[in-house]
Amino acid sequence: MDGSYARDSLDQQPHWPGRAKVILIAGGAGFVGSHLCDALIGNGHAVICVDNLQTGRAGNVAHLMTHPRFRFHQHDIITPLMIDGPLDEIYNLACAASPPLYQKDPIHTFKTCVYGSMNLLELAKSKGARILQSSTSEVYGDPEISPQPESYRGVVNTVGPRACYDEGKRAGETLFWEFGQHQGVETRIARIFNTYGPRMHPDDGRVVSNFIVQALRGDAITIYGDGLQTRSFCYVDDLVDGLMRLMSSDEAMPVNLGNPGEFTMLELAQMVLDQTGSHAALVRRPLPQDDPRQRKPDIRRAQSLLGWAPTVPLHQGLARTIAHFAAELGLPLHRVEMA
Amino acid sequence: MDGSYARDSLDQQPHWPGRAKVILIAGGAGFVGSHLCDALIGNGHAVICVDNLQTGRAGNVAHLMTHPRFRFHQHDIITPLMIDGPLDEIYNLACAASPPLYQKDPIHTFKTCVYGSMNLLELAKSKGARILQSSTSEVYGDPEISPQPESYRGVVNTVGPRACYDEGKRAGETLFWEFGQHQGVETRIARIFNTYGPRMHPDDGRVVSNFIVQALRGDAITIYGDGLQTRSFCYVDDLVDGLMRLMSSDEAMPVNLGNPGEFTMLELAQMVLDQTGSHAALVRRPLPQDDPRQRKPDIRRAQSLLGWAPTVPLHQGLARTIAHFAAELGLPLHRVEMA
Repeated sequence: MDGSYARDSLDQQPHWPGRAKVILIAGGAGFVGSHLCDALIGNGHAVICVDNLQTGRAGNVAHLMTHPRFRFHQHDIITPLMIDGPLDEIYNLACAASPPLYQKDPIHTFKTCVYGSMNLLELAKSKGARILQSSTSEVYGDPEISPQPESYRGVVNTVGPRACYDEGKRAGETLFWEFGQHQGVETRIARIFNTYGPRMHPDDGRVVSNFIVQALRGDAITIYGDGLQTRSFCYVDDLVDGLMRLMSSDEAMPVNLGNPGEFTMLELAQMVLDQTGSHAALVRRPLPQDDPRQRKPDIRRAQSLLGWAPTVPLHQGLARTIAHFAAELGLPLHRVEMA
Repeated sequence: MDGSYARDSLDQQPHWPGRAKVILIAGGAGFVGSHLCDALIGNGHAVICVDNLQTGRAGNVAHLMTHPRFRFHQHDIITPLMIDGPLDEIYNLACAASPPLYQKDPIHTFKTCVYGSMNLLELAKSKGARILQSSTSEVYGDPEISPQPESYRGVVNTVGPRACYDEGKRAGETLFWEFGQHQGVETRIARIFNTYGPRMHPDDGRVVSNFIVQALRGDAITIYGDGLQTRSFCYVDDLVDGLMRLMSSDEAMPVNLGNPGEFTMLELAQMVLDQTGSHAALVRRPLPQDDPRQRKPDIRRAQSLLGWAPTVPLHQGLARTIAHFAAELGLPLHRVEMA
């Protein structure tokens, strides 16, 4: 891989302030990753975006491709990365995160979580770079307590259809912890709860994008189970802010990042119907195996350690997300403005 | 690796009955693995013993080295194995299993559990071999219920000193389940509870070997915490019988193998003192982090699916184990016979 980023040449860029860093984002063309690219470029850093484009989309970073501080490399992190030049920070956001996508090739999903983490940790060690892992609320499985603090050890099925992701992410945390404890690497672990916003994949299969796409198309809204299971939804800008704060912090142990606002699937469906002006019906489907009944982050650690809390309310974030999907899918915007 | 086992040449062995198989045992020079080698050789099979001799010991299989149906290969399964010729079954018993040993190189431990499992599963797939994973009661972590049935999802810390093993083994189960579900491999998963017997490593660091070695040497017996935490102890011959029955069964989901007899550490210490005739004192040490308070297998699945239950009572298995350690350590046997 030609990932050379000689600091000398970067220093010659007109907008290269002294505090700027060279930052690698694995999964940088994905939903969250691409917003993080934007934020870090906006803060004056140089970004190496690595993505295998399996679920990430080149279109998410198309607007950055000609930026002098941005480079894109198509690479799958399940094989080791070679990067020339210095590297200050690594964000590991690589992995399909929705069950329909990560279950398409479960062993590849597992390898992305585990072999991918190992390869990035080895890279961080060789470069002296700080590295942040995007872990997930999935490590809590189907939790028995709510909200979930970081000390909660989770209820995860090792031998089920979600295990390739859940256990892969749990194992990823273990690797990060080990490299932090015994390999001298500065590691950070974010446990990310449901996140939504523009650039979600329309076929992502998660509830926010499902509902919006169904409502915009006038299709029936699919409710799994009784629709009373809850999720918390964090707008992507809030999450990206939390990730950057965690990277800058001294905290090596896991930190929840999510929005504690809790909504049932039925409540979310109603908000989407209201905002899209859709009169679509609801259609019920059986709850998939191991689907968690509730998810709500305890964010007291993020608040105290990072001074972070989400700021974008769901109705506002939904409006922006609906506008994005309407534009991407080429559906008439007046349906949104009817909200 | 020269692991060629042409069935033609094996068929020429005088003791090569028609039902004989070619069986690879990863970790075959370890405590459990070497007993399994003995049992399978005794049943007329050909055994390929693979071991990196990190915690396994060549002495454990020295008596088999000249056997015509036994081959030994020093190899670390974290790198792929190449085996020539047919292969009917694989037992994966490779990994240090006691905290002091597996914590010496945590990342290697993790790789043994995960990369090692992946490599053996790929081998099984390429050979059409059935493969059995030695998983562990450690997947239950510090359990909140007792006894633990296979449906219990465990309470495991992903970011602690036992995680390299516990999460590695959980991830191993996930890989076995995935290869069984989607890769056409016949997989078996044994969740092994505490096992003891001859050929345990004297420096293994687990409680049975610790107590016996301390008592035989006249050293004080180390009790961690209040000594009221419980374990169940399965004699190695019982476990090996269970492993072979599971391999021969049709059961792909995890099966507990262990002895439901439950003893506190203080009770075990007293039995060892009685049987060795030692008058050693007890010395207390702080409980290590994440040390489970109790472990007791629910073996109803093993009983109904495999017709298996342990048959060797603790006092009898302890006597055999003490005699073994006395001989290995060259300590006077009369101390044992005083029991």
